[in-house]
Amino acid sequence: MSVPPILEAVTDPRWFDLAVERWQDLLLDHANCEKKAASTALALMFAYPEDFELADRMSRLAREELRHFELVQQRLRTLGVPFRRLSPSRYAEGLRRALRRTEAERRVDLLLTGALIEARSHERFLGLIPRLGETLGQFYESLAAAESRHAGLYLKLADKRGERVQERLAELAAVEADLAVGPDPEFRFHSGTPVGSG
Amino acid sequence: MSVPPILEAVTDPRWFDLAVERWQDLLLDHANCEKKAASTALALMFAYPEDFELADRMSRLAREELRHFELVQQRLRTLGVPFRRLSPSRYAEGLRRALRRTEAERRVDLLLTGALIEARSHERFLGLIPRLGETLGQFYESLAAAESRHAGLYLKLADKRGERVQERLAELAAVEADLAVGPDPEFRFHSGTPVGSG
Repeated sequence: MSVPPILEAVTDPRWFDLAVERWQDLLLDHANCEKKAASTALALMFAYPEDFELADRMSRLAREELRHFELVQQRLRTLGVPFRRLSPSRYAEGLRRALRRTEAERRVDLLLTGALIEARSHERFLGLIPRLGETLGQFYESLAAAESRHAGLYLKLADKRGERVQERLAELAAVEADLAVGPDPEFRFHSGTPVGSG
Repeated sequence: MSVPPILEAVTDPRWFDLAVERWQDLLLDHANCEKKAASTALALMFAYPEDFELADRMSRLAREELRHFELVQQRLRTLGVPFRRLSPSRYAEGLRRALRRTEAERRVDLLLTGALIEARSHERFLGLIPRLGETLGQFYESLAAAESRHAGLYLKLADKRGERVQERLAELAAVEADLAVGPDPEFRFHSGTPVGSG
């Protein structure tokens, strides 16, 4: 699989192997991720209410993430996956720590990390589709295009709101790559390379 | 105007008079309220992820609130209302203070206050429609039915999740009525009776 344009590293095949084995946790954490994506979009709306275009786009984005959340929840139910609370992975917190604290830098960083998260989700969806059974594979196929579109939206919004955005994107992409492919004892939708399983 | 079934007091006519005069602030704060309503629904999804039905209904509700937020934003833009940050009114915070802290009581209280907020919004929409000009009046008319439906949804969800729900609703409705009709120096969508303007 080729590296999606903005990601600096591809997901290790061992992550995909574990994801297929732990598909129930994958789906449970996927529901959490869709919910979190909606909440991240809302946080941007609350932080920058004067930015009309941003608020409008984030509102529409949040609606789509919520729709996906509902679909994942329904899928969990159809497949009889029992509910289990899963702690969040280190991924979002790791990216959050990399954000600059001054404005308008923070807004740009939030948008760029948004783009990276969506791009990573898209990359993992694409890798999962042929590995999962037909039912789940088709489900992920139906969602994959949206992730790629969301990444593009975040990038476009960042581009209009900052300077040297491409350089900053490269810096954040390096942080993201460490989190997504570095050794990780925990399995989640955005976890790193499984430790000791290869 | 009759008292909507679950509210304990009607909005004072002086609030409506001020709302017509300060229609720009009304609309600006209305946008905040739709955004806040979506975020409240998301908070319930995060707090009670094991409650499948609640998460599903709240996700759909949040999508509808976000859609309304977008419509209010567009209306603000069409009417050329300049953006202004408005602090939240005392209303939501006052209701929050009345919540019980133990479970499952807290969940029931969150749902009941959700119902009361929606019912109050519905009551104010109905009062605003004939008082505002045709353009804004029609806009509020198009949104009013949703508020009433949302109040019903919150009530139904609360009913299935607690005991003595009607008694508790009456207690919270008394708190809500104090906030919505008690004297209030600030004007907001959910503020009380204007001080010194009658």
